[in-house]
Amino acid sequence: MANPVLVEALRGPAVESLHRGSIAVLDADAGVLLALGETQRPVYPRSAVKALQALPLVESGAADRLGLDDAELALACASHRGEPRHTQAVAGVLAKAGLDADALECGIHWPYDEAAARALAAQGRQPSALHNNCSGKHAGFLCLACALGGDGDVRAFARGYVEREHPVMRAVTAALQATTGWDLAATPQGIDGCSIPTYAIPLHHLALAFGRLGTGQGLAPGQARAAQRLRKAVAHEPFFVAGTDRFDTHVMERLGERVFCKGGAEGMYCAALPERGLGVAIKMDDGNTARAAEVVMAAAVEALLPLGDEDRAFMHGLADVTLRNWKGIEVGAVRATDALRRALAPIGAAAGA
Amino acid sequence: MANPVLVEALRGPAVESLHRGSIAVLDADAGVLLALGETQRPVYPRSAVKALQALPLVESGAADRLGLDDAELALACASHRGEPRHTQAVAGVLAKAGLDADALECGIHWPYDEAAARALAAQGRQPSALHNNCSGKHAGFLCLACALGGDGDVRAFARGYVEREHPVMRAVTAALQATTGWDLAATPQGIDGCSIPTYAIPLHHLALAFGRLGTGQGLAPGQARAAQRLRKAVAHEPFFVAGTDRFDTHVMERLGERVFCKGGAEGMYCAALPERGLGVAIKMDDGNTARAAEVVMAAAVEALLPLGDEDRAFMHGLADVTLRNWKGIEVGAVRATDALRRALAPIGAAAGA
Repeated sequence: MANPVLVEALRGPAVESLHRGSIAVLDADAGVLLALGETQRPVYPRSAVKALQALPLVESGAADRLGLDDAELALACASHRGEPRHTQAVAGVLAKAGLDADALECGIHWPYDEAAARALAAQGRQPSALHNNCSGKHAGFLCLACALGGDGDVRAFARGYVEREHPVMRAVTAALQATTGWDLAATPQGIDGCSIPTYAIPLHHLALAFGRLGTGQGLAPGQARAAQRLRKAVAHEPFFVAGTDRFDTHVMERLGERVFCKGGAEGMYCAALPERGLGVAIKMDDGNTARAAEVVMAAAVEALLPLGDEDRAFMHGLADVTLRNWKGIEVGAVRATDALRRALAPIGAAAGA
Repeated sequence: MANPVLVEALRGPAVESLHRGSIAVLDADAGVLLALGETQRPVYPRSAVKALQALPLVESGAADRLGLDDAELALACASHRGEPRHTQAVAGVLAKAGLDADALECGIHWPYDEAAARALAAQGRQPSALHNNCSGKHAGFLCLACALGGDGDVRAFARGYVEREHPVMRAVTAALQATTGWDLAATPQGIDGCSIPTYAIPLHHLALAFGRLGTGQGLAPGQARAAQRLRKAVAHEPFFVAGTDRFDTHVMERLGERVFCKGGAEGMYCAALPERGLGVAIKMDDGNTARAAEVVMAAAVEALLPLGDEDRAFMHGLADVTLRNWKGIEVGAVRATDALRRALAPIGAAAGA
């Protein structure tokens, strides 16, 4: 059975392309409010779970001991765009840990922000590991290494921190397992773009984890406090979780702590909606995050939160996007399908959204 | 009914994402060798039909009168990457027509080739309409305007050449209608990225048109000669139809006149296989060209042409692509599905491919 069409791209009067996928909405008690499409099949969550992977950084006390601020904690949960403010802040986190970019094992790529990439080229410079979209998460892993490694040489202890059996990655994996309740030892594993393991987890369990992330319910007390701290950090510094003109930054700049959302590669999106006690997890079959999963998430937030007119119009604009060509002529739209909106509506209505 | 899965992306042991789509393979007499998925529903062919749109440039005599060489004709069929050799050659075509970049109505974007974009930025320059991936096609339209406009002021005559009712676009549309045999007056129309109309045409008719493009059968004699001239030009100068490290350039550098293939936005691909008298047309449902439609086309060429071992291995490598992460670690693969290969196999076997 094919998953339902959640997003359609129109050009002129015709649907030009479409995106199938699945979405789960759960509360923190594992109550299922929506299971549209396959939500029990394990999928790689990729970067959508960075906030879960950052929990040990706070829970271990490392973040406090090193004095990480909100922007630095937001970076630990981030897929940033490699803009100067991002890379400078990541370098700052590494300095607090007594390390530098050489300790990062995430690999190197040009900034995802095209203007930042061109500016770097215009300066005659090459990218470093700081520009990798995952460098903030990795800097957080290295701070965690400071806490786990005791008084020895941090750099030596941290080496190989991306490997599954390293104490850093074991702590990260344990947090992922505790929050999702999914047996990661018995699920398909791949290697992520930044070289850490990625474990396949059903949307059902990812949505549950985000319900817990938003409410603290079902988490150990220290983990619940860490979750709240990370959510507040991102809400205060949403530029650092993504960057200029990015969905996550736009949404959290507008809605603050009402939403914590985070995209991942290959059509992944997760969100916590704390005031409703809900978690949302999305996977697009075709792996399209920017055009498809974001639109589904926008429609979900629009439907599930009680919003004022301006906020509602803002979210609607992200769920029904006008397409323009290189001359600025309107040529079509990318929008949430009626099928998706119909599925979401009853959950919103139940909360008076 | 959902279209079949033609491409799958694996990470570790699991399928992470998949791409559904349709493929039609026809001969020049409209004999259907393969119709997998929906092939009778009109779809926007986008840039995949640039060679059909370039036929009037040659058939009108404009290309000869202005002395266009193979590289310049290849550019008329191109979605180029905005590399310096591309933009210089487009400027040369415009000069032959007594025009310059100001006459182009395709709009402006940064070069698709990232190295070219960064080099431009490093020089402190901004992109022009020459860098638009469609600027070669538009330069060809302006050359056609020279032939259609008589002895008057070309610049004045050409103005608005992207509009449906302009003599240039009427000639282009007539060529598209003649080769595909599809009634363009009665089909959905949209506006393309470069501002010309795009008409929805079923894959069945697009594959037929490419069967005709490759063989000349079913075309008027002048059109058949123009088709051959364009195919040879692209085969001789495949860099100019795409650019550095691009599928179309790679394939035609290796296989020359044995394949004419051309991608388009939103998951479109078309090809002519002249020695087998076949046309191929592909549309991926989700609009993914680079990762999905290219893999389907690679599998089709691999299956349909009788190839030597090296050429077969080359095409196989494009139909079963190893994925590596930012550190160069192998993390998965993107490959044609068994369902696609099984559907293609009998057509190849029939020709001893």
